[in-house]
Amino acid sequence: MSTLATSNPSRPDQPIGVFDSGIGGLTVVRAIKDALPKEDIFYLGDTARLPYGNKDRTTIERYSLEIAGLLSVEGAKLIVVACNTASALALPRLQEVFRIPIIGVIESGARAAAAATKEKRIGIIGTRATVASGAYERAIRAVDPAIAVLSQPCPLLVPLIEEGMFEHPVTLEMLHHYLDPLIAEGIDTLVLGCTHYPLLKKAITEVAGDDIKLVDSAENCAAQVQQLLTEAQLENSAERPGNLQVALTDSSNPFFKTADQALELNINRVQTRIVQGVTLAAL
Amino acid sequence: MSTLATSNPSRPDQPIGVFDSGIGGLTVVRAIKDALPKEDIFYLGDTARLPYGNKDRTTIERYSLEIAGLLSVEGAKLIVVACNTASALALPRLQEVFRIPIIGVIESGARAAAAATKEKRIGIIGTRATVASGAYERAIRAVDPAIAVLSQPCPLLVPLIEEGMFEHPVTLEMLHHYLDPLIAEGIDTLVLGCTHYPLLKKAITEVAGDDIKLVDSAENCAAQVQQLLTEAQLENSAERPGNLQVALTDSSNPFFKTADQALELNINRVQTRIVQGVTLAAL
Repeated sequence: MSTLATSNPSRPDQPIGVFDSGIGGLTVVRAIKDALPKEDIFYLGDTARLPYGNKDRTTIERYSLEIAGLLSVEGAKLIVVACNTASALALPRLQEVFRIPIIGVIESGARAAAAATKEKRIGIIGTRATVASGAYERAIRAVDPAIAVLSQPCPLLVPLIEEGMFEHPVTLEMLHHYLDPLIAEGIDTLVLGCTHYPLLKKAITEVAGDDIKLVDSAENCAAQVQQLLTEAQLENSAERPGNLQVALTDSSNPFFKTADQALELNINRVQTRIVQGVTLAAL
Repeated sequence: MSTLATSNPSRPDQPIGVFDSGIGGLTVVRAIKDALPKEDIFYLGDTARLPYGNKDRTTIERYSLEIAGLLSVEGAKLIVVACNTASALALPRLQEVFRIPIIGVIESGARAAAAATKEKRIGIIGTRATVASGAYERAIRAVDPAIAVLSQPCPLLVPLIEEGMFEHPVTLEMLHHYLDPLIAEGIDTLVLGCTHYPLLKKAITEVAGDDIKLVDSAENCAAQVQQLLTEAQLENSAERPGNLQVALTDSSNPFFKTADQALELNINRVQTRIVQGVTLAAL
């Protein structure tokens, strides 16, 4: 038994730790709660340092290690990197450092997209850092090297979403600016490669049309979490609904209320955690 | 002499320290270089944690203290907070903690605006945090309580500027959205209450018209720096052009090149500084 404990230090009654640079990762929380209603979840949004999407790999790795460290302090049995940028740039380093299982949103999204495309032409939209990393492209090519992948960084979508401008004319104009070139290239599948983007699904469908299938990394990631918990025998078997705790590194995020309502999470208290970066010195 | 040294620990040959959450404060550097060509300047942009404008006072104070600490390490004789958000929220705390003179951009902008308005109706545009702080309003009312101040947070302007979309239709549409209500209220003076905004002067004039006077906090702040250095006998008298050093806390900021070119600063090397927050423990 001691060897098993060494290889897998987690227990089923511990919470799932979920993190994002901000609030967008709550779309992943919504999907995990739907798939695994008994699981406790501790969500940590690094709102004091968001966005990650325009920053460099060194910064994103450092921030991800620090936030995952805080989730370890909260006793997470598994960490979900509910941020495409951090998944694309920091996942290997996180898996090197921490012993508990850590999963990102890229691989499940890539697999779902590869399964969905008929014409073997997939579009990816995401932050500048996610697109520049080429992570989706590599993950999709690993499934099927014959698939053509067309990527488009969309740096203005997160600010527009955080302003709650889900169907504003300016948002539609920016979506045309970003998506029209991908549509002209004949993609039949579009990966929403940023956890904010599911909140823009309606506007994206309006611009892209009904024929292009949208792949939402949140849903696919939740399925992967469920599979991993089952395989590792880490599912919470408690006979009660799971508890959701939310902590942010900065208290004032006007987008929080919008997201809470849109996702029907009914979060009634938000804690604050200060990241000082000191913990990293020991890693 | 020793009492003088205690009250003013700085020497004329030390650099002026300038900081901003990102690159926008380079507009202040440009103005300081024009007014004081012999001064050495050390510029520090906290690009790893930008933007500050949507974050809370606790976070903005902490970041400002940490960045000012780094500028002290660089031997700054005077610190210019070339960021409206940090000036609005953190200046009192900075002045409490550090012995060297620290000046922000709010007071000089407020004085210039109060001098410029004829109808006694001033508009302020800035980040959400700057506007919510009420700092410009207080500073203008301190000069003349009869002046009406109308404020408008413009959270999307910084992302649009950082994308280099200075005259894009979407930028003009957002400017109409933000400025039309102020114009309808009959302002005759508009304070560009964010160091990014001078890069949008042309588009703002197109939307606001030639009759509304634009107050650029960068220029007015440089005049205040000059006055303070003269009074404190801290002017650099070296017979050579001043040296500009630039350091950022994150290496990848696509906006940097745009700003460098638009401001003709010819910065050929950018250093990196890591802020770990550890220095703050001692304050």
